[in-house]
Amino acid sequence: MEVDKNGEIASESSSPEEQVVNPWEVSAKDGGKIDYDKLIDQFGCQRLDESLIDRVQRLTSRQPHVFLRRGVFFAHRDFNEVLDAYERGDKFYLYTGRGPSSEALHLGHLIPFMFTKYLQEAFKVPLVIQLTDDEKCMWKNLSVEESQRLARENAKDIIACGFDVTKTFIFSDFDYVGGAFYKNMVKVAKCVTLNKAMGIFGFSGEDHIGKLSFPPVQAVPSFPSSFPHLFPGKDKLRCLIPCAIDQDPYFRMTRDVAPRLGYSKPALIESTFFPALQAKNGKMSASDPNSAIYVTDTAKDIKNKINRYAFSGGQDSIEKHREIGANLEVDIPVKYLSFFLEDDAELEHIKKEYGEGRMLTGEVKKRLTEVLTEMVERHRMARAAVTDEMVDAFMAVRPLPNMFE
Amino acid sequence: MEVDKNGEIASESSSPEEQVVNPWEVSAKDGGKIDYDKLIDQFGCQRLDESLIDRVQRLTSRQPHVFLRRGVFFAHRDFNEVLDAYERGDKFYLYTGRGPSSEALHLGHLIPFMFTKYLQEAFKVPLVIQLTDDEKCMWKNLSVEESQRLARENAKDIIACGFDVTKTFIFSDFDYVGGAFYKNMVKVAKCVTLNKAMGIFGFSGEDHIGKLSFPPVQAVPSFPSSFPHLFPGKDKLRCLIPCAIDQDPYFRMTRDVAPRLGYSKPALIESTFFPALQAKNGKMSASDPNSAIYVTDTAKDIKNKINRYAFSGGQDSIEKHREIGANLEVDIPVKYLSFFLEDDAELEHIKKEYGEGRMLTGEVKKRLTEVLTEMVERHRMARAAVTDEMVDAFMAVRPLPNMFE
Repeated sequence: MEVDKNGEIASESSSPEEQVVNPWEVSAKDGGKIDYDKLIDQFGCQRLDESLIDRVQRLTSRQPHVFLRRGVFFAHRDFNEVLDAYERGDKFYLYTGRGPSSEALHLGHLIPFMFTKYLQEAFKVPLVIQLTDDEKCMWKNLSVEESQRLARENAKDIIACGFDVTKTFIFSDFDYVGGAFYKNMVKVAKCVTLNKAMGIFGFSGEDHIGKLSFPPVQAVPSFPSSFPHLFPGKDKLRCLIPCAIDQDPYFRMTRDVAPRLGYSKPALIESTFFPALQAKNGKMSASDPNSAIYVTDTAKDIKNKINRYAFSGGQDSIEKHREIGANLEVDIPVKYLSFFLEDDAELEHIKKEYGEGRMLTGEVKKRLTEVLTEMVERHRMARAAVTDEMVDAFMAVRPLPNMFE
Repeated sequence: MEVDKNGEIASESSSPEEQVVNPWEVSAKDGGKIDYDKLIDQFGCQRLDESLIDRVQRLTSRQPHVFLRRGVFFAHRDFNEVLDAYERGDKFYLYTGRGPSSEALHLGHLIPFMFTKYLQEAFKVPLVIQLTDDEKCMWKNLSVEESQRLARENAKDIIACGFDVTKTFIFSDFDYVGGAFYKNMVKVAKCVTLNKAMGIFGFSGEDHIGKLSFPPVQAVPSFPSSFPHLFPGKDKLRCLIPCAIDQDPYFRMTRDVAPRLGYSKPALIESTFFPALQAKNGKMSASDPNSAIYVTDTAKDIKNKINRYAFSGGQDSIEKHREIGANLEVDIPVKYLSFFLEDDAELEHIKKEYGEGRMLTGEVKKRLTEVLTEMVERHRMARAAVTDEMVDAFMAVRPLPNMFE
């Protein structure tokens, strides 16, 4: 599963006539911005509204996460049902994942994991994290060995986000596919015709059959019976999937087949995409390391990238800026702060001062540099503390006796 | 893998204009006989000639099996290379299998196993037997549980054929897919485009993606690295696959991708199909229990089926029969005797006497009844002696330290 698209917006096909959003391509119409309202209509998911966020606050007795308060996670499927059940005392489990295609993660990659960690803590529920090394081996033409190495390296970054080992099972497909998981893969595959898969995922006759075989692999962690060591006898446990909305096709398929297998449909909570540094209208190269801030970047790298590449909504001259203020709609520093600056009051202050021209781009970039440098430094230290033994512990196939406590 | 087509010849599509042979359908042209010479040309395999059979005799110091002497196994791919290597002291391993779609096996099902047992004994080599419960779950729409139950029941019949537990690993896909096996599945899948798979196997857009996912499952037992508990460090060990020729498409695909993965191509030794009792031109129903003799049939069943249903090449009247003799080409009792009567001299005698009208159909049927009753009774006793512990022993994932002795 690839739950973020930073650096890939409009990068794979430039300016299509209609927006394209699928697990492998995200392109806005005519090089503009992604129309998320249209996406909700097209995919048939639901908007995550204020009342639902208030309900999360009430049920968890804590302030909703920044990503909820600020609309980063903006759409859902059956999240209300999961909350209904939770209110009645029925727990659920979380499922998210990552396609391990690169060594170092960038900030966009962390978003689903930061949010999932919050959900795990707030709801006190278990979590399965799928590392789709098989997917990346097939799509990125990596060797099996390299895909598995990247999966393990990425697991360290994921663990560094602070997951609770007593509630979290991380698995690589190359390690874990088999047994109950494979049986569910076969059950799902029986329910999806080739025509349907080609329609959902846009595969063509020139694609290899590995791609056709993969959707069931990403589907079945949605079903508790795929994890007999975690959920024995809990076949009715609901699954909630936090992911970026480009993953929706996989789970539309999964939700479509679930009732035919006697399984519950997984619920989803879906995020927007994290923009590239240069992204005004998304024209950029996915392979450009200057398009993103990586968790391995130094303080100097971060400062340079923000100062040189972060697209500014400020005006060309100080005079004009003081007069009409910044265009916050296109301003990347403000956008990034809205993801990562915890303090709501400070964010509002910056937006007001900057939007009305009293604050300059340089000042906003300076604050963003501080926020990201601190965040990256914190991640770096946390990751350095992750040992191979810890990775083994998270990835061990074992029961989690205290996973609901 | 389904290595026999008894009862299915021309049963799924009546009288096509060209003969159709693939893993799911075997139909002769215009309802006639399968043209095996044409099949060899079309598939691109080689005829198993006398010199190769003589070589087997020399290398194994024993009389070649009836199925070799009488052309039941009639085609091959690289069998000569396997023998070259064997002569130099390089061993190989055998791979065969069965799709567990029914409770009781019939005589046709036993053919590949009887022959494989002979190869195992004659060459002193290890053997893997794949039970494709996943395939039957998908194609026959059986439940996972029912497919697995049938796999285990069929394993008992297979074990009853007399395989050596110190040299034989029997596995069910639902049990065994995963790890090194799954890694090889992904490697194979990457090399086969959807167009190619549709061309080889005749899949259509209405077929489910499970069917598209399956060919790599049947392909990878051809590679020793799929069995790290059996062949560690023996990645160059050649594989020889005894099977009916309808399975050739799977292994054409496998042989096509093997060099791209750095693997040796599997060699094949391929049989004709075992005819149904009524088969003159094959018009019959696959679901008709009277079309085949099952290993569970009683002596009375066998006698009745042969007398009532076995298509005779004898003449309508005794006078005419005495005058022109039987048509051995279409006579099923003679055909069956050529599979199962060990004694070459007796078989020749029967063919001569019957073909020249001195022997009557009833006499030939009587001899066939004796041969099959004895064979089925022997199988029944052997199967009754197969315990669950023996099945567990054959199916245990374990090293086989004496597999080449």
